[in-house]
Amino acid sequence: MTTKYVYFFGDGKAEGTAEMKGLLGGKGANLAEMTSIGLPVPAGFTISTEVCTEFYNNNSEYPASLKGEVDANLRNIEELMGKKFGDPKNPLLVSVRSGARASMPGMMDTILNLGLNDTTVQGIIEQSRDERFAYDAYRRFVQMYSNVVMGMDGSILEHILENKKNEKKVHLDTDLTADDWKELVAKFKTKIEETLGQKFPEEPQAQLWGAIGAVFGSWMNARAITYRRLNNIPAEWGTAVNIQSMVFGNMGNDCATGVAFTRDPSTGENYFYGEYLVNAQGEDVVAGIRTPQPLNRAKQKDGDLPSMEEVMPECYQQLVSIRDILEKHYKDMQDIEFTIEKGKLFMLQTRNGKRTASAAIKIAVDMEKEGLIDEKTAVLRVSPGQLDQVLHPSLDPKAQRNVIAKGLPASPGAASGEVVFCSDEADAAAKIGLKVILVRVETSPEDIHGMNAAQGILTARGGMTSHAAVVARGMGKCCVAGCGEIKVNYTANEFSVNGTIVQKGDIITLDGSTGEVMLGLVPTVPPRLTGDFQTLMGWVDTFRTLGVRANADTPADAKIAREFGAEGIGLTRTEHMFFETDRIAAVREMILSNSVEERKKALAKILPMQKGDFIGIFREMKGLPVTIRLLDPPLHEFLPQGAKDITALAQTMGVSVQTLKSKVEQLHEFNPMLGHRGCRLGVTFPEIYDLQVQAIMEAACELTKNEGFTLVPEIMIPLVSVVTELKMLRENTVRICEEVIQRYGVKVDYLIGTMIELPRAAITADKIAVEAEFFSFGTNDLTQTTFGLSRDDAGKFLPLYVEEGLLPEDPFVSLDQEGVGELVKMGCERGRTGRPDIKLGICGEHGGDPASVIFCHKIGLNYVSCSPFRVPIARLAAAHAALQDGKLV
Amino acid sequence: MTTKYVYFFGDGKAEGTAEMKGLLGGKGANLAEMTSIGLPVPAGFTISTEVCTEFYNNNSEYPASLKGEVDANLRNIEELMGKKFGDPKNPLLVSVRSGARASMPGMMDTILNLGLNDTTVQGIIEQSRDERFAYDAYRRFVQMYSNVVMGMDGSILEHILENKKNEKKVHLDTDLTADDWKELVAKFKTKIEETLGQKFPEEPQAQLWGAIGAVFGSWMNARAITYRRLNNIPAEWGTAVNIQSMVFGNMGNDCATGVAFTRDPSTGENYFYGEYLVNAQGEDVVAGIRTPQPLNRAKQKDGDLPSMEEVMPECYQQLVSIRDILEKHYKDMQDIEFTIEKGKLFMLQTRNGKRTASAAIKIAVDMEKEGLIDEKTAVLRVSPGQLDQVLHPSLDPKAQRNVIAKGLPASPGAASGEVVFCSDEADAAAKIGLKVILVRVETSPEDIHGMNAAQGILTARGGMTSHAAVVARGMGKCCVAGCGEIKVNYTANEFSVNGTIVQKGDIITLDGSTGEVMLGLVPTVPPRLTGDFQTLMGWVDTFRTLGVRANADTPADAKIAREFGAEGIGLTRTEHMFFETDRIAAVREMILSNSVEERKKALAKILPMQKGDFIGIFREMKGLPVTIRLLDPPLHEFLPQGAKDITALAQTMGVSVQTLKSKVEQLHEFNPMLGHRGCRLGVTFPEIYDLQVQAIMEAACELTKNEGFTLVPEIMIPLVSVVTELKMLRENTVRICEEVIQRYGVKVDYLIGTMIELPRAAITADKIAVEAEFFSFGTNDLTQTTFGLSRDDAGKFLPLYVEEGLLPEDPFVSLDQEGVGELVKMGCERGRTGRPDIKLGICGEHGGDPASVIFCHKIGLNYVSCSPFRVPIARLAAAHAALQDGKLV
Repeated sequence: MTTKYVYFFGDGKAEGTAEMKGLLGGKGANLAEMTSIGLPVPAGFTISTEVCTEFYNNNSEYPASLKGEVDANLRNIEELMGKKFGDPKNPLLVSVRSGARASMPGMMDTILNLGLNDTTVQGIIEQSRDERFAYDAYRRFVQMYSNVVMGMDGSILEHILENKKNEKKVHLDTDLTADDWKELVAKFKTKIEETLGQKFPEEPQAQLWGAIGAVFGSWMNARAITYRRLNNIPAEWGTAVNIQSMVFGNMGNDCATGVAFTRDPSTGENYFYGEYLVNAQGEDVVAGIRTPQPLNRAKQKDGDLPSMEEVMPECYQQLVSIRDILEKHYKDMQDIEFTIEKGKLFMLQTRNGKRTASAAIKIAVDMEKEGLIDEKTAVLRVSPGQLDQVLHPSLDPKAQRNVIAKGLPASPGAASGEVVFCSDEADAAAKIGLKVILVRVETSPEDIHGMNAAQGILTARGGMTSHAAVVARGMGKCCVAGCGEIKVNYTANEFSVNGTIVQKGDIITLDGSTGEVMLGLVPTVPPRLTGDFQTLMGWVDTFRTLGVRANADTPADAKIAREFGAEGIGLTRTEHMFFETDRIAAVREMILSNSVEERKKALAKILPMQKGDFIGIFREMKGLPVTIRLLDPPLHEFLPQGAKDITALAQTMGVSVQTLKSKVEQLHEFNPMLGHRGCRLGVTFPEIYDLQVQAIMEAACELTKNEGFTLVPEIMIPLVSVVTELKMLRENTVRICEEVIQRYGVKVDYLIGTMIELPRAAITADKIAVEAEFFSFGTNDLTQTTFGLSRDDAGKFLPLYVEEGLLPEDPFVSLDQEGVGELVKMGCERGRTGRPDIKLGICGEHGGDPASVIFCHKIGLNYVSCSPFRVPIARLAAAHAALQDGKLV
Repeated sequence: MTTKYVYFFGDGKAEGTAEMKGLLGGKGANLAEMTSIGLPVPAGFTISTEVCTEFYNNNSEYPASLKGEVDANLRNIEELMGKKFGDPKNPLLVSVRSGARASMPGMMDTILNLGLNDTTVQGIIEQSRDERFAYDAYRRFVQMYSNVVMGMDGSILEHILENKKNEKKVHLDTDLTADDWKELVAKFKTKIEETLGQKFPEEPQAQLWGAIGAVFGSWMNARAITYRRLNNIPAEWGTAVNIQSMVFGNMGNDCATGVAFTRDPSTGENYFYGEYLVNAQGEDVVAGIRTPQPLNRAKQKDGDLPSMEEVMPECYQQLVSIRDILEKHYKDMQDIEFTIEKGKLFMLQTRNGKRTASAAIKIAVDMEKEGLIDEKTAVLRVSPGQLDQVLHPSLDPKAQRNVIAKGLPASPGAASGEVVFCSDEADAAAKIGLKVILVRVETSPEDIHGMNAAQGILTARGGMTSHAAVVARGMGKCCVAGCGEIKVNYTANEFSVNGTIVQKGDIITLDGSTGEVMLGLVPTVPPRLTGDFQTLMGWVDTFRTLGVRANADTPADAKIAREFGAEGIGLTRTEHMFFETDRIAAVREMILSNSVEERKKALAKILPMQKGDFIGIFREMKGLPVTIRLLDPPLHEFLPQGAKDITALAQTMGVSVQTLKSKVEQLHEFNPMLGHRGCRLGVTFPEIYDLQVQAIMEAACELTKNEGFTLVPEIMIPLVSVVTELKMLRENTVRICEEVIQRYGVKVDYLIGTMIELPRAAITADKIAVEAEFFSFGTNDLTQTTFGLSRDDAGKFLPLYVEEGLLPEDPFVSLDQEGVGELVKMGCERGRTGRPDIKLGICGEHGGDPASVIFCHKIGLNYVSCSPFRVPIARLAAAHAALQDGKLV
């Protein structure tokens, strides 16, 4: 049995279905599905993604049977359409489009009007009775094909076109005549042969196979690789190729083309949202060269461009009913493309529409209410990674806004930053930590990395479905598009708007929800979480099994954590308390001590303040578990390093500069990350940990005694590499705890545990667990030691590693499951061997990264702990993990 | 069935054997064995080590049946000796001695003359007809017992004794009369009761159980713990207690006591070596208070002290025949103790004698020739750790020696260092890296840590079998003992010798083979390895299966490596070459380059020199495998850091100070160990590795083409954490190699491999092995990252960790098998999964540590690589591993 490589669709029947996205790509599967459910789709066929994979595995050779299958399917189209590929009288023209499993907007190349040559163009003239249209289609094909398939520099042909317009003293393409286009086609072909040393293919079959090859080839182009990297799409998935009978939206004023969303992709509101252009080809809408017209008057009550509802009421009504069919069929908001050829509506694409996080939440909750989906599906409809958007601050409504322009509110959110005009610059600036706003006339797939690096995007051209808008929404970036008032001057590195000049480096603020562009930095306010958000998170919590805690060092942080639904604190870092201005002097005195007695005297001054810190946090958490990590950083972090600061401190402390300087030098470390820190401090200076334990337990006992609290403090000992360290420090800790409990005469339970943040701790977790009631995986440090990679120094090479694909992503952002994750897994398994009921959590920054949260669910952790603002993300990711058994949607 | 806890020996019969060292301790097992083979041993019994273990496991309580067993055995002694314990007329006196499984010289406390009290002393007077002897024995017992068992400060009683001598205006103990001693016994007892608030026990049974308790108690004293830690003896082994009928070497001039070795423990020469004292108790010889007399004239032809051979010819001949019996029976050199009571010889101990490394080699080879042992046993007789001694340089015979004194050549070797007079100081000085010579009047068990820390030991008192001599030989430390010319003044921190004053901090040199003490530092020469050494190493190589290579960076190192038997080079560090004066300028130029082109220009200057380096090494290794590691350290290591040096370099390089300074700052790293180094340099600056690969391959091709060499360079890429790094750099390497090979038109094979020195590399070794033909475990860095421990910074806490037993030993010295070793094992297993025929080696400093070598054998590495001087140690350890299936003798 030979593999079937090609799948036909047309005339209400299709060999594929929407479920076959893996094989047919998203576009192909949905074209098949739409055909099957009776929607008007131009006939065509899909070459499966398996061909792409075999192509790359097999030295760029196609499977032997492919040619025959393509020919047979092409004959099917011919029969259905009553046309013939390459026929001089009645030629069939086709489009060739890529279609990967996951939607990759703008990333893959498309060829339209394929099949045209000097002979077949005559047939088109005859059919369309429009010579100008025919030659315009022909020259578009030549331009597109020579660029995408043959590698011709597009600007060379554009230059010839410009010359022609100059010669004819006209400004617009539409001012050129049929003869002009005809002449240009000839000139183009000559120039192509001159430049590339090869003829433009006349033979339609040759054109077709060239285009198929180009689609497969584009799977491995740099833009596609970047996009896949940013979106975690494996290269092995491959792309399909869709070959479809052409329909024309540009054959006259009874023709049109448009894109639409079945609901508003920015807000999620349930109305029909879209744009169209009369007498235009599909790419014209997305490319943003002409400003498109609205589909209806649902939002833009009194715009100056007539809507499709008004101009083409019949087609519009047909489209509205298709919208209903699609939403009921797919049970999700759809992003559709259509073309009207001489009054006849054709569907060219449907897919689940990209949406902002707030839209995703609203649509999911609405659809559940409408009975379209259940709660489980609603939860899975919102991507945890995307949720970040709604948790970010928005512009303070009370703040002064110096609005200089207003564009389309293409992707919501607020962003401030320095203006840059080029994607490479945006990327470079972001790498050194600058916040930038990328300002472009319009964006193209080449700008992906710059858009990714920027805080927000501002374009002068393009509508709500332009490249900039779609990609920005996908990235969750704020975007103001089509802001025609601004005049961008790339050469001068500036834009002007109504007399104001904004130069590279000037700070502007964008409001993606209103489309406003403001001069300077506008202050922000914390996010308000809507009723829909609360509804959804309620469902989330019924599904997830993994606990979610927050990392919080202050009562204020603790409050936010609880508001965001944290079930406890997984990490309180006590060193931040040591830096507070009211105690840093005592901390320094302690460090400069020369004996245990001196050190104890200084520590005694810190005790009441530390106790106060803990009382505040415990009170805020109302009895929820709180894990407190004893002092972790090396002591030199608390001393100044520069000569001037040392002199100043010496004066304040009343010690000689020389004494202080030599202490600083004595404490200097070559590799502080691997130095005298964590429990090593506790081993060498037990009095420091003793003080902290005393403060924790006194706080707990006081609240128990005076305020009727019930709480179980979790005391965490960091940086353990060998169980003997923990054993010694545990004994000290128990001694102090029991002393305090006895002194207060109350009953307070407490847990003693450790961070697992060194490879050796994970490897010997069975032994360490004997002395630990809980483990918290410190995956930040564990990543540093497992990779041998200092986070502070990695900037010189880590970005390159990610760019070149040596690493799939920054391992400090998303847990390296293959390496670091393996140690975490080992730590869990061995830890449970040593103590079956051990409590296991994670408190690195990975605790707020969806993929890492799912990993934590899979390996059976009890909880993750992350920054308070990421708690809802972790909750949602945990629900996804539980619902999908570990697979991220 | 109740456990048997007590084992009897006496009158030619014994319940124990020499094989029962685990149960009876070394001393007890050998006393039993000697009894069985008919040697004259005073009757006695041994309380087994199981009692010690139960004692510590059971809250310091003895097993219930012990008392009955002890009583029964005591009755056995009474019957054999015709005496009765506590009998006023005919009292039995006993010694109580510890005896652990491994010999622990001087570490455990001993009680002699037990059973004496005011009543029984009369019986002794009657029997010995020597009242003075009896009261002397009695007062010795009171002093010893009160100190060891009751915890009395010995100096208090010594002070009373001194007073008595002053009062009587005599200088020597021997000038005191029976009445004096009698009076002193009473005074001692009064003082003891006064000081401790408890009476000295009169009842012999109470004395006995007190002594037994003290022996068990001493197992856990600080000295014993230190010794066990230094010698890797587990605390669980416990000690036995030996209770034996007393014999007296101090009953008159027909009495004597002595210690002897069946061969010379310093040189291994086959003659009877020992010392004795007439009219003395056993401890007097070892304590070094009286200078002992030689056993015979074998070496000391014309000494002024008469030998035992001359003074007691019959006893001597009996001892010589016992020497023969023991050597034939034990088939090893024995260390014996004997006492002659009124012309009758008694054996008190035999054990395998400690010996220097050269003695161990000579004895092993000699005994094989004598047919006593086979080659395998001979190899196992030499401890790999000890071998270090013979591989160290000795004093240059041609150097000027300013000899200020001459003592006994107690332990061979050469040592120079600053004089210190106290063991704590020696220890402290060594910790900060100073080399010191410990100078003491005599040493005691309290000095173990100081002796261990010192380069060499010099004592004013004590013979060849004194504490200092025995312990120093065991440690392989150079020692000059009994150097009576020097007068030590602890208070002034100086010693004087013939008018020369040597103060603390002055440098002296010791020659342990001649006993010379020299002022200042005397230069040394490399070791000459004797015929016996070569014979033994020949046997070694027939037994071992693990390969041994050396780490060598220069042709000179390579030469030494080959001479020491290395089978190749396991690590050539190319960075050392970069520091050579003729190329550091070009290296710095390369680092300061702002473009790839500039960098390539600078690298081109380095190429011929690098190639020269490799040619030199390849030529020296004559075709043996050579593993070359590409550049590893971060680039800032090649630039100066101080302001002055930067200014100087800027002038030399012709760049501005500012430029150079900013480059230095730009390259600064917070944690260079985890920074931009190793293959990360190769990834970001491929041209550097390309140059090195080119130099390696050009060197290999030239030697192949011009000198007919056959060699397979092994190119090693360091610090790989993820396989993609290696894949990329491997492709570059192959490209360059093939280019060079083609250019030279020769056939040269090469291997490309990697260091496994990061936890992530070990964990993902299966994937990495796909791109690596060999792995070399870099256990130095692997230890740093697995423990999260910077070797450069660990000085502040690691010594404390080892002291407090948190770590069994410094993991940079001996591989941490539980943690780091687990990763190495995992790396091997997974590596072989990825590539079954992968070559596996280790090139950290652990490659020369015997325990680590044995671990490497066990987990199936192909080779270890260590510093050239440690190659023989690694070879021997590998043979031990093969012969003993991984158990170190």
